[in-house]
Amino acid sequence: MEIIQSAQNPLIKGVKKLQQKKYREEKGEFLIEGIRLVEEAERAEQLEMFFYDESLWKTKRGRLLFHILKQKAGRCHQVSSEVLKVLSETQTPQGIVAVAKKKELTLSALSGWTEGIVLISDGIQDPGNLGAMIRTAWAAGVGALIALTGTVDPYNSKTVRSTMGGIFHVPLLTQLTWQEVYEWIRRQGYQVVAGVLNGGEDYYRNDYTGKVALIIGNEGQGLQTVVMQHVDRKVKIPLAQGAESLNAAVACGVLLYEIVKQHEIVKQHEIVKQQSKAL
Amino acid sequence: MEIIQSAQNPLIKGVKKLQQKKYREEKGEFLIEGIRLVEEAERAEQLEMFFYDESLWKTKRGRLLFHILKQKAGRCHQVSSEVLKVLSETQTPQGIVAVAKKKELTLSALSGWTEGIVLISDGIQDPGNLGAMIRTAWAAGVGALIALTGTVDPYNSKTVRSTMGGIFHVPLLTQLTWQEVYEWIRRQGYQVVAGVLNGGEDYYRNDYTGKVALIIGNEGQGLQTVVMQHVDRKVKIPLAQGAESLNAAVACGVLLYEIVKQHEIVKQHEIVKQQSKAL
Repeated sequence: MEIIQSAQNPLIKGVKKLQQKKYREEKGEFLIEGIRLVEEAERAEQLEMFFYDESLWKTKRGRLLFHILKQKAGRCHQVSSEVLKVLSETQTPQGIVAVAKKKELTLSALSGWTEGIVLISDGIQDPGNLGAMIRTAWAAGVGALIALTGTVDPYNSKTVRSTMGGIFHVPLLTQLTWQEVYEWIRRQGYQVVAGVLNGGEDYYRNDYTGKVALIIGNEGQGLQTVVMQHVDRKVKIPLAQGAESLNAAVACGVLLYEIVKQHEIVKQHEIVKQQSKAL
Repeated sequence: MEIIQSAQNPLIKGVKKLQQKKYREEKGEFLIEGIRLVEEAERAEQLEMFFYDESLWKTKRGRLLFHILKQKAGRCHQVSSEVLKVLSETQTPQGIVAVAKKKELTLSALSGWTEGIVLISDGIQDPGNLGAMIRTAWAAGVGALIALTGTVDPYNSKTVRSTMGGIFHVPLLTQLTWQEVYEWIRRQGYQVVAGVLNGGEDYYRNDYTGKVALIIGNEGQGLQTVVMQHVDRKVKIPLAQGAESLNAAVACGVLLYEIVKQHEIVKQHEIVKQQSKAL
């Protein structure tokens, strides 16, 4: 098969455009790179097209991936390492860059889900923070992540890398306003909890059993005023004197896992109750 | 006062060398930039020298800082914006770059401290992760952070920025081997707890009351084998199916705040007990 040698190749030029948000939105696609992310995209059946160079064969894991992918006729393109560099946004694409298709949910598709937790980003700006939040949401078994308008694009390359594959496993909803989301979470019966820096109760004193919508605000500004007005519980993570705040992704992890833990404990109690009834 | 216009100025050339780890170790100094970090360095009395350009006066907070700092005769240098750019490692130094002096503790200086928690980094490699961990340690009131050999330099510019000032407030110990640290934590009576991905118990089931040394391992490899052998408790954060791990700084936050919470609750119980005795 022909090896694409030129960055001026029309296919390459078209794909490279996905490095820009505008084109990602237009096409409903985004770029990923590295073996791990491509494996996850394949598992989630979101892989559209991919580009590799010889260095993919350097590792056993890379060769294995290649054997799976090469069966997808017409979507598999060998390129020179110069061309791969043009498509890549890191120093180490591990021999592979791919186009993945977005898979977004709507609020109505999410309705009636039994999963207990929804995570809402209200203006998170740092791509690494949003990525780590998606990764944490995946690990914590969160039902969906809603990125309100004003949040950084979840499909930018730094965010995608930081998710470590979570981007393909956490149901995502983007470009929604608080008004739309708020109406939905009220109808669905969620408790609305927001992490705040001042004026809340200690986070571990709140009862999170039942459905919880956890809102994490912007790194500097916190929550929008309109969001703050609709919150049921403001919870804060206690800070030692002098310390002003936690990293947003760290704070998200601390709060999310307190909720998960309470849900787990409730579940285990129910199992024990059922077992003792059965005896 | 004379404005330094040339990056070839011997003072500037000397200070710029602090961008390299080798010189930071040789001199016991490191570079910081931005108003917030310089304020924290000043508060901690670790400021050696600073360089500003006119843009420092753009904000009220910048002007206030300038008025405090300009009284330090001989250590205050106005430079051209080109020179400031040479010293800076970001796009936005906010008009100020400074030299701070390291302030490190030894294990013997730390002995007998009553603070309950020590955080140990075993090979954390990502500067942003280590910085977020130091920031979290500050917020959680951790007694000290020990960076074992093999951990990224806590004084590199990206780490320092991510600490948001924590670098000046969390007692730091660096370049220690596990052997040295282990002997010390045993003598001091710490429970040694490690975050692991497999084979541990759920982190929230462990009793953390009393002194705790929490170890966070390398992002990819986890803990050194020799460290793993000496651990009292391996604890894991439960992960949903398919998810492989959490970001190291997020995992550190989840574990650290579980420990803090248990300590808080014990403290409050003791206060209540004393109050009821007093009645």
